[in-house]
Amino acid sequence: MLLYSAPMPAPNPRRVRIFLAEKGVTVPIRDLSLRDGDHKKPEFVAINPMGQAPTLLLDDGRALTESVSICRYFESLHPEPPLFGVDAYNAAEIDVWLRRVEFRLQRALGLVWQHTHPFTAHLVKPQYKEFGETQRKAALAYMRELDTALADREWLDGRAYTIADIVLLSCIDFGLFIGVTPPEDLRALGAWHQRATTRPSSKA
Amino acid sequence: MLLYSAPMPAPNPRRVRIFLAEKGVTVPIRDLSLRDGDHKKPEFVAINPMGQAPTLLLDDGRALTESVSICRYFESLHPEPPLFGVDAYNAAEIDVWLRRVEFRLQRALGLVWQHTHPFTAHLVKPQYKEFGETQRKAALAYMRELDTALADREWLDGRAYTIADIVLLSCIDFGLFIGVTPPEDLRALGAWHQRATTRPSSKA
Repeated sequence: MLLYSAPMPAPNPRRVRIFLAEKGVTVPIRDLSLRDGDHKKPEFVAINPMGQAPTLLLDDGRALTESVSICRYFESLHPEPPLFGVDAYNAAEIDVWLRRVEFRLQRALGLVWQHTHPFTAHLVKPQYKEFGETQRKAALAYMRELDTALADREWLDGRAYTIADIVLLSCIDFGLFIGVTPPEDLRALGAWHQRATTRPSSKA
Repeated sequence: MLLYSAPMPAPNPRRVRIFLAEKGVTVPIRDLSLRDGDHKKPEFVAINPMGQAPTLLLDDGRALTESVSICRYFESLHPEPPLFGVDAYNAAEIDVWLRRVEFRLQRALGLVWQHTHPFTAHLVKPQYKEFGETQRKAALAYMRELDTALADREWLDGRAYTIADIVLLSCIDFGLFIGVTPPEDLRALGAWHQRATTRPSSKA
């Protein structure tokens, strides 16, 4: 198999790299340069018509897309250590965190990026800047909720580092890149970010 | 256990009811009236602080939220028939569909609902109507992509009715409720909708 990835600050390919590092699994990786438009070139679009990284090309020619779906696939192939939960309840609980982080934080950050950031101004026409600013507030409000949740626990599910933490790390760092910085008084979230960043997998 | 649900047109509680009907599993259900604000009343907020349906209250007092996470929990308890996939690749592929439907169609429909619909005008202040209209176009464009994908298959994964179809059904019907109607020339999507609606589970 071959994993098409893209370097930082792209948040989605990074999730798969962190996931594989936590599993201790090595997969051949080919980096696409999003700046050079590698993901829109015919040879890559032939593999993934949506032109997105990450994409996992299997040996039989089938391709999987979507960061978390690719991680679920690797979880089936390499169950240890479990990063999607250890039993029915824990798996559901981790999925709840994953969905909240994606539907609330990632969605809001994506809209800030698309509608307020100078880097995307040539792609998103028109940008609805006033609307985008409301999403900055929404992202910061959700960071505050996360801070409350993390006050009594090391990782989101209260048990271990999981896919939900990996996705949150990718979102917080993407937020830093686009200028949506967690306020310093969110100490539990800040300590969580420090712990997640200290793991060797964060450099993958 | 007790499933807190809410009647049509609420799309998320409906997913869990359809899922249970497909499994042939019966769970005690208590309907909340969203119009009467049952989901924001103290006795319910004590169970789910986010005040959302569906919520699954377990016998030990723990509560699970998020429609798809609750479905994953029931998939673990009652594996047959499999609605999240039959093997590693199929499970990942269904997850890809699920994510596309939620991130592209559901997200766009939610923004149309929040920013253009008279029903939400007293809740979403201000509504960014011009932005909302761009999301109506995005929803219709994604319906067109789904139509192309469904041209050669009965269900999204090409194998069986799954959680991805259940979520898509809830989205299409929510779109109809808010006035985002699939164009008639999307015949494969229309035929899919007919097939999904004909299943007895759609009435659950």
